[in-house]
Amino acid sequence: MTTLGILGGGQLGRMLAMAAARLGIDCHIYCPDAGSPAARVSAAATVAGYHDEGALSLFAEAVDAVTTEFENVPAATARFLAARVPVHPSAEALEIAQDRVAEKSFLNGIGIETAPWRSVDTLDDLNAALDEIGPRGILKTRRLGYDGKGQVRLEGPEDATEAFAAMAGAPAVLEGFAAFEREISVIAARGTDGAVRCYEPGENRHSEGILRTTTVPAQIDAATRNAALAMAERIVSALDYVGVIGVEMFVMEGGALLVNEIAPRVHNTGHWTLEGCAVSQFEQHVRAVCGLPLGDPARHSDAVMENLIGNDIDTVPALLAEPGAALHLYGKGDARPGRKMGHVTRLRARVG
Amino acid sequence: MTTLGILGGGQLGRMLAMAAARLGIDCHIYCPDAGSPAARVSAAATVAGYHDEGALSLFAEAVDAVTTEFENVPAATARFLAARVPVHPSAEALEIAQDRVAEKSFLNGIGIETAPWRSVDTLDDLNAALDEIGPRGILKTRRLGYDGKGQVRLEGPEDATEAFAAMAGAPAVLEGFAAFEREISVIAARGTDGAVRCYEPGENRHSEGILRTTTVPAQIDAATRNAALAMAERIVSALDYVGVIGVEMFVMEGGALLVNEIAPRVHNTGHWTLEGCAVSQFEQHVRAVCGLPLGDPARHSDAVMENLIGNDIDTVPALLAEPGAALHLYGKGDARPGRKMGHVTRLRARVG
Repeated sequence: MTTLGILGGGQLGRMLAMAAARLGIDCHIYCPDAGSPAARVSAAATVAGYHDEGALSLFAEAVDAVTTEFENVPAATARFLAARVPVHPSAEALEIAQDRVAEKSFLNGIGIETAPWRSVDTLDDLNAALDEIGPRGILKTRRLGYDGKGQVRLEGPEDATEAFAAMAGAPAVLEGFAAFEREISVIAARGTDGAVRCYEPGENRHSEGILRTTTVPAQIDAATRNAALAMAERIVSALDYVGVIGVEMFVMEGGALLVNEIAPRVHNTGHWTLEGCAVSQFEQHVRAVCGLPLGDPARHSDAVMENLIGNDIDTVPALLAEPGAALHLYGKGDARPGRKMGHVTRLRARVG
Repeated sequence: MTTLGILGGGQLGRMLAMAAARLGIDCHIYCPDAGSPAARVSAAATVAGYHDEGALSLFAEAVDAVTTEFENVPAATARFLAARVPVHPSAEALEIAQDRVAEKSFLNGIGIETAPWRSVDTLDDLNAALDEIGPRGILKTRRLGYDGKGQVRLEGPEDATEAFAAMAGAPAVLEGFAAFEREISVIAARGTDGAVRCYEPGENRHSEGILRTTTVPAQIDAATRNAALAMAERIVSALDYVGVIGVEMFVMEGGALLVNEIAPRVHNTGHWTLEGCAVSQFEQHVRAVCGLPLGDPARHSDAVMENLIGNDIDTVPALLAEPGAALHLYGKGDARPGRKMGHVTRLRARVG
């Protein structure tokens, strides 16, 4: 019997734990919050902070492998655990993904294009950056921030002072505006043996910075698709990555690809794989971090995944009654605006 | 937040708990064994006997509804709980399904054919029964027994003494031999509102009394299919049943249907619905017993489900590598002969 330790207790951990259970693997959730969504479907839970070395030591003794369900697990926590038990993804991969400057430097360093960017620590930095790569762009904190949080859009130099103030002194990065045709993502997995498997790219639509839908396949030509898959493979191999990663890309006019962001974990844009594939992204991640061979990522059906955000939860009665709708609710009590409460996947045409 | 109590901790409870979790519902497992497969994926567990009224009272207070994952939960337990919290299926339905004589009497009483049968309490009863409905048949204990346990096949009157001895004094029933063409099952669900939904009948193959495969759809003509569905609907309505039930049927030459057995729970022959339908039998059961509307039982794909029994667990490495194979392992430590360790489902052609 294998026990997989998971750092973090949200819905991604919850779906990972259920995928692990399907393979007969117990999960042990480590999370500062009691009664987390993931802990409620797991064999064991530790409620403690990510810097509590006593609790981390006991956790390491109780599990056979450790993984993470969100990218902002402190790298020091991963490093502390990795001295005691296999940890994937590595502290190094987390460190790169946790800092937008480190991430973009890494990507550019292996020959992958991003939107133009500049590191911004001062208002002077921001004005200079707008001069070089502006006039439009998005100012983001280097660390933390997701679903549009910690981000300010600039329409011109006149927005600089207010945008810089919004960073509240946090180191930031200006990303030049990328006039993309569409946004896609590749969910890739790499095993301990170095094997890489990618799911079919999905096409994503956001609203107010939050993912609304992912549609598979993306409306891109074969050359763009193959370039996207090759890019994801280059990233996971360069990171010596083990596990599932989400790679968000902008498709520019003419088909050029810019990487927007990498997320070193299972990804919201891969939820469709639960219904569309024999082996979901969650099972694929469990396989990878437990040292099992990766599964076949081929989809049997096209699919559309729709997030249920905040008050979308009020549509649940209609979704329960809708033929063909596969509903997932995350067991969160409070439907705050912008909070991901669940998702629904609808299968489309059969593939192959 | 709803909490569903489940009596029993095996793999059926485990898959029910995961389906409940997908709808944001917590599960609380009540089972005499610590660390049961179902408890390891649930929010809470009580380890106590089924006649422990103190523990049952506390359990009833902790949950919003109660269901069962195996048919041999003592009816008295269900009745004790039903005075405190909604319990589905009912104690009455369990009592009928727990006693082969009560079950066959019920079925015949609502005009549903079974193989000929006689109640057997003495060796004289058995000899008389063989005379009337023999010479071939199967002697089964009235209660308990599954996967071929508590059953003896008789090829003629000369087998009577030994077969009767094998019952070890337990009340029994002789079932006349039914020369069926195939065995099918209908997984039916009935909601608290009386709505009935049936999945497509599957065709079952057994070996040594244990289910090996279920193939969907069954190779039967439309008239037989419709008769099978109507029969399942008649059974759940007559029982005033709430939840999922498995109805095993023999298809005779010419298409006549005999009901072999009813199982008042999710059923091994319905596991294919996890991959083949948007709403699986497990989610359907959770919906029913929690008072939610039933979901669409239509399948999107044909499917074949294969059980992994005992040493079949040794094929897991090959199954992990097989494209399109959806693997389920139940987290049982010891692969004893005849023990159900997991199953694998393979989707076939798309439907519709």
